[in-house]
Amino acid sequence: MIELRSDNTAGVAPEILAALQAANTGSALAYGGDDLTAHLHDVVRTVFEHPTARAFPVTSGTAANSLALSASTPPWGAVLCHPSAHIVTAEGGATSMYGGGAVMQGVGGSHALIDPERLRSALDKVRWGDPHESQPSVLSLTLPSDFGTLYRPDEIAVLTGIARERGMRVHVDGARIANAVAALGCSPADVTWRAGVDVLSLGATKNGALSAEAIVVFDDRIADELVYRTKRAGHVTSKMRFQSAQVTAYLTDELWLRLAANSNQRMAELATELASLAPYGVRLQERVDVNMAFVELPSTAIDALASEVLFYRMSDTSARLVTSWQTTAEDVAAAGARFREAVTRTG
Amino acid sequence: MIELRSDNTAGVAPEILAALQAANTGSALAYGGDDLTAHLHDVVRTVFEHPTARAFPVTSGTAANSLALSASTPPWGAVLCHPSAHIVTAEGGATSMYGGGAVMQGVGGSHALIDPERLRSALDKVRWGDPHESQPSVLSLTLPSDFGTLYRPDEIAVLTGIARERGMRVHVDGARIANAVAALGCSPADVTWRAGVDVLSLGATKNGALSAEAIVVFDDRIADELVYRTKRAGHVTSKMRFQSAQVTAYLTDELWLRLAANSNQRMAELATELASLAPYGVRLQERVDVNMAFVELPSTAIDALASEVLFYRMSDTSARLVTSWQTTAEDVAAAGARFREAVTRTG
Amino acid sequence: MIELRSDNTAGVAPEILAALQAANTGSALAYGGDDLTAHLHDVVRTVFEHPTARAFPVTSGTAANSLALSASTPPWGAVLCHPSAHIVTAEGGATSMYGGGAVMQGVGGSHALIDPERLRSALDKVRWGDPHESQPSVLSLTLPSDFGTLYRPDEIAVLTGIARERGMRVHVDGARIANAVAALGCSPADVTWRAGVDVLSLGATKNGALSAEAIVVFDDRIADELVYRTKRAGHVTSKMRFQSAQVTAYLTDELWLRLAANSNQRMAELATELASLAPYGVRLQERVDVNMAFVELPSTAIDALASEVLFYRMSDTSARLVTSWQTTAEDVAAAGARFREAVTRTG
Amino acid sequence: MIELRSDNTAGVAPEILAALQAANTGSALAYGGDDLTAHLHDVVRTVFEHPTARAFPVTSGTAANSLALSASTPPWGAVLCHPSAHIVTAEGGATSMYGGGAVMQGVGGSHALIDPERLRSALDKVRWGDPHESQPSVLSLTLPSDFGTLYRPDEIAVLTGIARERGMRVHVDGARIANAVAALGCSPADVTWRAGVDVLSLGATKNGALSAEAIVVFDDRIADELVYRTKRAGHVTSKMRFQSAQVTAYLTDELWLRLAANSNQRMAELATELASLAPYGVRLQERVDVNMAFVELPSTAIDALASEVLFYRMSDTSARLVTSWQTTAEDVAAAGARFREAVTRTG
Repeated sequence: MIELRSDNTAGVAPEILAALQAANTGSALAYGGDDLTAHLHDVVRTVFEHPTARAFPVTSGTAANSLALSASTPPWGAVLCHPSAHIVTAEGGATSMYGGGAVMQGVGGSHALIDPERLRSALDKVRWGDPHESQPSVLSLTLPSDFGTLYRPDEIAVLTGIARERGMRVHVDGARIANAVAALGCSPADVTWRAGVDVLSLGATKNGALSAEAIVVFDDRIADELVYRTKRAGHVTSKMRFQSAQVTAYLTDELWLRLAANSNQRMAELATELASLAPYGVRLQERVDVNMAFVELPSTAIDALASEVLFYRMSDTSARLVTSWQTTAEDVAAAGARFREAVTRTG
Repeated sequence: MIELRSDNTAGVAPEILAALQAANTGSALAYGGDDLTAHLHDVVRTVFEHPTARAFPVTSGTAANSLALSASTPPWGAVLCHPSAHIVTAEGGATSMYGGGAVMQGVGGSHALIDPERLRSALDKVRWGDPHESQPSVLSLTLPSDFGTLYRPDEIAVLTGIARERGMRVHVDGARIANAVAALGCSPADVTWRAGVDVLSLGATKNGALSAEAIVVFDDRIADELVYRTKRAGHVTSKMRFQSAQVTAYLTDELWLRLAANSNQRMAELATELASLAPYGVRLQERVDVNMAFVELPSTAIDALASEVLFYRMSDTSARLVTSWQTTAEDVAAAGARFREAVTRTG
Repeated sequence: MIELRSDNTAGVAPEILAALQAANTGSALAYGGDDLTAHLHDVVRTVFEHPTARAFPVTSGTAANSLALSASTPPWGAVLCHPSAHIVTAEGGATSMYGGGAVMQGVGGSHALIDPERLRSALDKVRWGDPHESQPSVLSLTLPSDFGTLYRPDEIAVLTGIARERGMRVHVDGARIANAVAALGCSPADVTWRAGVDVLSLGATKNGALSAEAIVVFDDRIADELVYRTKRAGHVTSKMRFQSAQVTAYLTDELWLRLAANSNQRMAELATELASLAPYGVRLQERVDVNMAFVELPSTAIDALASEVLFYRMSDTSARLVTSWQTTAEDVAAAGARFREAVTRTG
Repeated sequence: MIELRSDNTAGVAPEILAALQAANTGSALAYGGDDLTAHLHDVVRTVFEHPTARAFPVTSGTAANSLALSASTPPWGAVLCHPSAHIVTAEGGATSMYGGGAVMQGVGGSHALIDPERLRSALDKVRWGDPHESQPSVLSLTLPSDFGTLYRPDEIAVLTGIARERGMRVHVDGARIANAVAALGCSPADVTWRAGVDVLSLGATKNGALSAEAIVVFDDRIADELVYRTKRAGHVTSKMRFQSAQVTAYLTDELWLRLAANSNQRMAELATELASLAPYGVRLQERVDVNMAFVELPSTAIDALASEVLFYRMSDTSARLVTSWQTTAEDVAAAGARFREAVTRTG
């Protein structure tokens, strides 16, 4: 079976496992009092070219997002995001729970990206200062989006500009931020603080780590709250050094970007193959900017594929395909062949 | 330096690291949809001799305690525990946060253990059903206590009996439960469900695992809530298989009890040595039931020791000492010698 | 100035003020321990023809809605309602706060009423039992809607049927329920429990009371929770007898329906007059089912009216008009004349 | 039956009922947008001699306390108060609920008053900045205490000084603040902001109002939060003018102090009488500083009294007695006679 369900199903990258093993020496203070965690702040400052950024290792993307947001909004605030955002659709209300009842409000746009005009219009209608209405407090962007599409740095800056004019903060859900940075060919700073972002959920798990994510904070007031919020959420693990070791290895020597470049490249190859199957009723439903494709094809073809390729079926006639750091060119070639076979045979 | 600060400073046991590495093969469904996590339920049912027990891997003891408690109490409930309990003193209010404003109330007793008569008396004073008063809903026992003392199974049963008569549930904070089971020489069931316990925070991290704990649930209503509560707290990690693999290895072939037996044994040796120093002003402040000792000694001796032995200083004239699965007989002999030297030299 | 801003701006009805004064005799137990509050349950059982209904007096509609909903949903639930519902647009996130992070999700439909097909379709897409997704737990209907439109009893039954099939509960925001019952000419039971409703926010303040609303509960499990939830929210007032006296007077001898019938009738007269102004660019934007109208008219006319009639301006060319129990036929005749004048003069 | 159960059982003072009726004229904006509420700020500024104080009318003391505290503490904070404080013993955990999981910690002292040395000692032991430990954030004083005892202004200043040195805020639960001010003969400012208090729960209901309390805020940051927190708690009533009218009348021409002076004076008379019964086994258990006494007497005497005097029995041999603005000299004389009779007859 060829694995294309999710980058979440992949294993741990050898470099990261090695770092984890290397950290298993001697004793060290618990709860982040160790040297590896202290060092992680420096790593993050270097990689993000920011003098005071701070990193909070947590163990899941949901934790990263909801804790980051809870430290950025008052309980009576509203977090604005695209209706397709993971924080709304797939985190069980974590943001409202940690946020003390803060709400999430959708702002639409094509390609799963927030449209600046719609954002502006939504904010123009707000009765600012009126306690009867939840007050927009944070703009949360997903990069790449849950449909695998990207904002460019200048597009991010336009959105954050609109939000910041109203005193809002900006969060980026970067569960796959490495794929975004690798695809955009920009610096990590370009899609974060230089573009007006205050706090980033830096994903690592989908891209080779073992339940290690980090909240990267560019605003000290948010970081100061996170010291307490992470602890009382049970997200300050006692053996944090093993998470810090992973994130450090991940960000060192551009490992994160190399791993992401592989999954992006593999998906590009697969997408090219799929595009060539247009005559047989195959259609890419969305831009393929990173390592994810949504594809429409005859239901009989999907049925036929199900025994050879692992993927998420979105409907009778559509599927989501995701490559990972582990996906090989052979996997993709094989998958492409299966797709071709399935649609030509059943077409 | 000889490490006696905390079992939390120790590393990962080889068997557990091996299991983690072994799990890094092939791809697997995320968020606990994998085979290793499915298997963990069976492991727990066998070890705890309970047909329907369920296990929820989480990444910290604070998460295990506060999530277990939040699933056991209504928001208007009160969790009763010893004033020295970790949930009150060292978790930043996590139980009240996850519990929607549930409160914690102390019930005293010597040796850091709840006194049954005090528990009964506290419950007799409650205005049951009166919403003006927080309603006692859960009894939380710490086993071993934060001062390293143990309840025997029959003592647990007396306490849970008092609580259950009033319809309360019972939680055990078992951050070091392996040390308790190993020391008591009983079966895991004897100190949990057979003694009237509904839900257990099963610690593994302090005893050789890598940020892996599990909530073990003997009551389906609590388990059904935890499905949702763990997710929205960000404690359903995407690569849960690596936690499940650890906990499985930990509970297999009594590894957990063997690791704990070592730390208990090492502390017993150290305690014997310390007891022999009584003529020099050394006094054990508390019973030594497991791997932890609180010792009083001249402040000059403590000062002298600080450069050779790592420990927590509790006051000018007292220290906490903890052994771990990694502590060796040589460590303990060396530590004992240092203590002897320090008190005889300075005494 | 003729008052058409809101029924919330009206005063206290003489019968209710008299009841309040009558209650000011002798001493009485606080916090609902008084005879008047005990009697209120009977009043509600009679009026709603339900043998076990219970009433919880609270002091605002926001309290009634959010407390009722918090007792009907788990924290990981989703409350489904029309996007125009007051609980979403005008209560500052109260439901998410009291609900421990429960979310609200919009289900659309014309005339500010939920469309059964859209409800069914939304529920069909839910991944039931999957903790990654907020689980629909309560259907909240607004009767009349925030645009003054009504569901008929049979329409309510269809919606509640769809919800109850999925194990959901049903809440009615009845801030103006008296207007609905009066307009529909049905019994209070017909639009509540007989149509599948579990809990009702019974408004009284907009219709002649003084900060007195009541949560009327037809499901004992919800009521049992409200005993605690109302208290810890500070909504169990010490002198509850003065609220119970109001609600009792309100529900006695159909006072509530008579007061509502007046506001409905006055709005009907005004709507007739406005409809006759169609040749001058006046248009009712929504059905006028109760005491509320949304009207479109030339902006110059709105400008001209502003000095003579009090109303809420919704946009450059539209206004909301609301009559109350205090609005007289003379008020309406005068208002109609002003509208005629304004549109003919400026038209 | 002579009523001595609680000042909460009394009715509404004529001046306040008159003000409420006077407010029932014309229409007015809802939710505090009315002139009476706007004026209330001025009233409070005059009475408290503070240029920027703001008042938030709420409908219960529990609401006043818990909302005031939630606006003064971060969710990871601890509210320090006497173990006998109403917020701990009788509000169902409201402060932890509104406070997002903030905890309450007791600091003892005789006469139900916090001892400065114990406060200092508790604060000296805190690991400030350590997220494992709830961080003391607010000192909450109860004035008068739940046992009817008073701090003098200079005693308050000592306590607030200790708290403010650590950056804590100070709240006063003034459910009976009028009794305190009347008894101390000081200005309202002397026991609040001039003594270092940031926010006051100003009770009125126990002393003649109808479910009307106010949060009086001397710190704008707390007030700015309360704008939102009161609304989403359902404590911004639509007909707020009727509460504002009450509080205004209450604070005008020293009505509040006159009403409180009566209850204080009546209790002083009763206490004198009770003290004279010492030979018969009657003993005042606590200082009688305001309108409340705790008295020990033979159980047979209590039994005998129960059919003639209404009071709260605290134990077999003790009772709580409270006078109110409505208690007359005749009531007290009669009650005294009954006590004398009961103890001499049964003694």
